[in-house]
Amino acid sequence: MVFALLALIVFKDKTVTQFVYSGLLSFVLAAIIYVRYHKAKLTKLFYREALAFASFTWFVVGVLGAFPILFITDAGFTDAVFESISAMTTTGATILVGLDNMPKSFLLYRQFLQWMGGLGIVIFVVAILPMLNVGGMRLLRAETPGPIKNDKLAPRVSSTTRYLWLVYVVLTLLCAACYWLAGMSGFDALAHSFTTVSTGGFSPYDGSMGHFDNHWILAIADVFMLLGAISFALHYNNFTRRALRGYWQDEETRWMLISVAAISFILFLFVFNHGVHDSVSESISQALFHVISFMTSTGYGADDLSAWPAATAGLLIMASYMGGCAGSTAGGSKFIRNILTVRILRQQMMQAIHPQAILTVRYQGKVVKNDVVLAVMGFMLLVAISSLVLTVLLAMTGLDFYSAFTAVVACINVLGPGFGEVSSNFIPVSDTGTWILSFAMILGRLEYFTVLTLLLPKFWRD
Amino acid sequence: MVFALLALIVFKDKTVTQFVYSGLLSFVLAAIIYVRYHKAKLTKLFYREALAFASFTWFVVGVLGAFPILFITDAGFTDAVFESISAMTTTGATILVGLDNMPKSFLLYRQFLQWMGGLGIVIFVVAILPMLNVGGMRLLRAETPGPIKNDKLAPRVSSTTRYLWLVYVVLTLLCAACYWLAGMSGFDALAHSFTTVSTGGFSPYDGSMGHFDNHWILAIADVFMLLGAISFALHYNNFTRRALRGYWQDEETRWMLISVAAISFILFLFVFNHGVHDSVSESISQALFHVISFMTSTGYGADDLSAWPAATAGLLIMASYMGGCAGSTAGGSKFIRNILTVRILRQQMMQAIHPQAILTVRYQGKVVKNDVVLAVMGFMLLVAISSLVLTVLLAMTGLDFYSAFTAVVACINVLGPGFGEVSSNFIPVSDTGTWILSFAMILGRLEYFTVLTLLLPKFWRD
Ligand SMILES: [K+]
Ligand SMILES: [K+]
Repeated sequence: MVFALLALIVFKDKTVTQFVYSGLLSFVLAAIIYVRYHKAKLTKLFYREALAFASFTWFVVGVLGAFPILFITDAGFTDAVFESISAMTTTGATILVGLDNMPKSFLLYRQFLQWMGGLGIVIFVVAILPMLNVGGMRLLRAETPGPIKNDKLAPRVSSTTRYLWLVYVVLTLLCAACYWLAGMSGFDALAHSFTTVSTGGFSPYDGSMGHFDNHWILAIADVFMLLGAISFALHYNNFTRRALRGYWQDEETRWMLISVAAISFILFLFVFNHGVHDSVSESISQALFHVISFMTSTGYGADDLSAWPAATAGLLIMASYMGGCAGSTAGGSKFIRNILTVRILRQQMMQAIHPQAILTVRYQGKVVKNDVVLAVMGFMLLVAISSLVLTVLLAMTGLDFYSAFTAVVACINVLGPGFGEVSSNFIPVSDTGTWILSFAMILGRLEYFTVLTLLLPKFWRD
Repeated sequence: MVFALLALIVFKDKTVTQFVYSGLLSFVLAAIIYVRYHKAKLTKLFYREALAFASFTWFVVGVLGAFPILFITDAGFTDAVFESISAMTTTGATILVGLDNMPKSFLLYRQFLQWMGGLGIVIFVVAILPMLNVGGMRLLRAETPGPIKNDKLAPRVSSTTRYLWLVYVVLTLLCAACYWLAGMSGFDALAHSFTTVSTGGFSPYDGSMGHFDNHWILAIADVFMLLGAISFALHYNNFTRRALRGYWQDEETRWMLISVAAISFILFLFVFNHGVHDSVSESISQALFHVISFMTSTGYGADDLSAWPAATAGLLIMASYMGGCAGSTAGGSKFIRNILTVRILRQQMMQAIHPQAILTVRYQGKVVKNDVVLAVMGFMLLVAISSLVLTVLLAMTGLDFYSAFTAVVACINVLGPGFGEVSSNFIPVSDTGTWILSFAMILGRLEYFTVLTLLLPKFWRD
């Protein structure tokens, strides 16, 4: 809020009062929450309270962040909350159109909100999530290459936060510098670095990255989207050890890079054969950029995808389900789970051929424990079931099936853009549908279990 | 083949020579296979050979059944094989149009092929599948209420086949009699009983069940589709004990009936509110019929679904993923797996709240073993992954995403009709796409693992 107020003075547009109002409102609400939760906070958290705390935090912060949007644009309450949650969860789906003519301070606020969201996510997934017994993240906790091994939540959060801040800020500044060198204005470079490193995907332009029509900028975005989708604990380790090799030694990062290359190659062949772009280099650049944008769940666009052959949507949707690495800002299922899922299924088939053999699943050289296997499979099943159920619910609000499905994909994978009716913005979605999608963003961002556990009647009973 | 030849003489149309040719061809091929496999057969089958045998049988029988279609209609080889595999797997997807004007003997052959396919499936899922270590069916084997507990494949198959034949024929005759009493001609009654009890869904009319415009017929179809989707071993037990209560005591059957009621009710509210049909009774009849038709994977139609609100497609797709009961002719995931999946996920969430508690999953009063839990989750994941990957592949052959997805749903769940471009037939699908879908039908019919295990390089290596 303070940042937004400062930004005002620099840009001198007429949104000062609105920011003051929202700031005051947020302050009052934050104060109430602080007083309410102060005693229960962090040191003595039980699993149940931690689960509830995480979900409610994202919702409350989403509502708080909505006030400037409500006051400055002509969006209603539902849409403003959606936009704010979309920023906070680094989804990047928008209900705004005509960004190019909006006040610059507001646009920067929106970018900054997503950057803050990204930081919040990194802290959540690195420090808090491994403590909760959800989604197989105890594995990550054991495997985390970061310096933090503390089992108490409060010291863990504060010490982790310190080093994550550092990595996050350094990456953002590097990204902004590269954008600026490639020809962006200072404002554009900062605004886009905020949403590249956070794999958020908001842009101050309706045309997203296509606005610049510059392949150097796409290439820079490629690199920093990938960096944003790699575990921040791994970044920290590699920074301190000055060991670039560490990335390739990490099984998760390695498979993400291999998958990016493979899917980009297929997409390139497909796009080039259909003559969407004439030149080979243009086709490669576009294919690579979109695969990285979707796989890291950033959601930047640089071309009119509706002019691409229909199957590209399928490939990009598949990429977005894969997601980035655990411990990063990326969404999707995460590569650690993809790798384990493939190995689990292969092991089950091998077991069908050799019923007597005792086969195990390995990750990073170690045998994966049975409860982790179950948790990973449970997570993947929840992804599939949530996709189907939310699509049906959304279709009931009046969207066609394809738009409903891609809207759900865009939200549960915290990706951003959909296809069909929701390819450029989410205005066609009804109010009920918008709330469903707001829920979907938090559901996907907090890795399903965190939110769904709250819906068990048993959760509240004893 | 003999049956088809006999049918010819009754109908006196000019397809005799074509049937004779196909019959001879089939005989020669069958003889070759028999000689080739005679020694390896049944008594000494290893898991690996059993898996390969099951998959190849369905493919070879699919090709054999295709000859009459190739000779009599103007379908090409690809389409004829698709139609035949569609019959054999009781899918009921068709590449034929203008059925109403085709020779009656051919139409009856097509219905009969599906009926035989249904019987083959029942024998496969009750006698053979539980012996293979795939998809959690060892659970079924332990829980099977049927009289067969033999562990040797050959005696098991022959003794099981005897009592399954009985149940299958009795249900078919009952169904035909009811249709006939409700006003169908003898030909129609027999032809439709063939594809109701087998939950196949082929009809000799382009209009499917809508051809008759008779709510009694829909109600009869409702009952017999449900009977075809209940475990045939359970039928046998209840027949011999004369205990109708046995159906409700079976957890799987009970949850299928509850789900049918619940989803029909939602669909009814939805259809009635949108004013698709004026009267309440008409709306109930149509909603119930379509939910049962999709959930049991029969795939009959009785109305122009494209005039229904878009969300109905979503509801029906969801129903078709659920499927019927294990040990029946129905496709989909099967209710035993749906029940276990819900319980496994709920248990994982409970575990997140109470990390120290030791929680188990129960089915039919007994604790479910860990390897069954893994196998069920593996199966469900394969359903989801296959859906996505096959949809993308199919979209690459030129279909739009929605048509591609619903075509895949229709084939892997052995349902039959899709939506969008493939709502009435599969003619719009390219040749490559048709082969992908033929593969998808066998994949879904043989419960994924059986087929996918063959694709492991390791399968062939040692
Ligand atoms: K995003
Ligand atoms: K069917």
